[in-house]
Amino acid sequence: MDLLNSHRTIRKYGSKAIPDELLQSVLYSGTRASTTGNMQVYSIIVTRDNEMKEKLSPCHFNQPMVKEAPVVLTFCADFNRFNKWCNQRNANPGYDNFLSFTTAAIDAVLVAQNICIAAENEGLGICYLGTTTYMAQEIIDILELPEGVVPVTTVTLGYPDEDPPLTDRLPLEAVVHDEKYSDYTANQIDKFYKNKESLDSSLEFVKENRKETLAQVFTDVRYKKSDNMVFSKKLLDILDRQGFMNQ
Amino acid sequence: MDLLNSHRTIRKYGSKAIPDELLQSVLYSGTRASTTGNMQVYSIIVTRDNEMKEKLSPCHFNQPMVKEAPVVLTFCADFNRFNKWCNQRNANPGYDNFLSFTTAAIDAVLVAQNICIAAENEGLGICYLGTTTYMAQEIIDILELPEGVVPVTTVTLGYPDEDPPLTDRLPLEAVVHDEKYSDYTANQIDKFYKNKESLDSSLEFVKENRKETLAQVFTDVRYKKSDNMVFSKKLLDILDRQGFMNQ
Repeated sequence: MDLLNSHRTIRKYGSKAIPDELLQSVLYSGTRASTTGNMQVYSIIVTRDNEMKEKLSPCHFNQPMVKEAPVVLTFCADFNRFNKWCNQRNANPGYDNFLSFTTAAIDAVLVAQNICIAAENEGLGICYLGTTTYMAQEIIDILELPEGVVPVTTVTLGYPDEDPPLTDRLPLEAVVHDEKYSDYTANQIDKFYKNKESLDSSLEFVKENRKETLAQVFTDVRYKKSDNMVFSKKLLDILDRQGFMNQ
Repeated sequence: MDLLNSHRTIRKYGSKAIPDELLQSVLYSGTRASTTGNMQVYSIIVTRDNEMKEKLSPCHFNQPMVKEAPVVLTFCADFNRFNKWCNQRNANPGYDNFLSFTTAAIDAVLVAQNICIAAENEGLGICYLGTTTYMAQEIIDILELPEGVVPVTTVTLGYPDEDPPLTDRLPLEAVVHDEKYSDYTANQIDKFYKNKESLDSSLEFVKENRKETLAQVFTDVRYKKSDNMVFSKKLLDILDRQGFMNQ
């Protein structure tokens, strides 16, 4: 499918605003995604205000897209609305647990991807911000998310002002397993990662970070164990605080 | 976007097999989805074998789609491959934690939704199975998923043998918030859920389950607190067992 196969992350946006009608249409396509039991246990926070972008920017480690994109969308797992409905209908909601968070987080991501595809179909460019789960507490405070709501991912949206090439992918056989998971041999790992490792951009990455291997750039610079441990603890605390860890 | 806006879940499939070339093309479109740091920390297990479908069927509470669809896809959060690569490249992976699981689970869901859209674009029908996170341990055993791999969602795939109507959705204003989360008043809840509650199918649902309200069908029958508590505990145990809960 050409639209999907030509997807590139867009990090530079033109100044052209997104017409509100277009944004609404793209958001609507998001809501057509499947969700568990058609419960739609997600919410989308639309940020267009510059002051709000300024506040959100540090939550995304000051990546410039947050302030430069005309629209920032924060996708949240949200059982608050559903719980309120249950309580108003003499029903006793039992969604204050980890399974329910997982369900709602999956819903939110399905909707996010639909929105990204609908946006790209309209000539817009998108960028996912993985920082959302790292800085969820700060985002909760800024967006005033109540109990039952946790931000899961963020997308910046705007008209592209760059035309980057397709990025590399592992060969299909590296990520697809037939009937059962066939664990990887050392030779397979070498073969599957060879292309990624040999790219000019990867070699440059290794050099500028003064590392021996591309993998070390990931483990020692980009996604470090020490950071992961801190953010894991923070995220589990947030799930508890937002009411998803009743055991 | 018509393709997204006309999405219906398909639970009945014709006997026509999915040509392998078509399946590979759809899977490839999945891999073009964005993932965190382009790490692609997911795997897809393709089930076509009837014996494997028989084994998976109870994991999905014997929903008939599992045995009747020509293809079942299990989407997994997978840091095993990436960890093996790191270890082979003198890099020390720090992905045995909850943040890394969340990252990988989001990756897996983005890829799943791309695959569903690519499949629908080719005239195939899809159904998501939320049971995957409930029965993750059984699925791990059947698909022989190693440490670092956790199933997140499942999709059944085949040529449609039904043409169901569009299902209801909450109004867009119910799930979208402008700049900050505006919590729901009792009147808003009434208004946003009115359409869903007044559908013939909902009234039938309430009646056949001998409940007072549609919300009670969700809380007392379909997604019960007692089940959620059991499955939450199981899922957290699995994350620990699969190596994602190092604190």
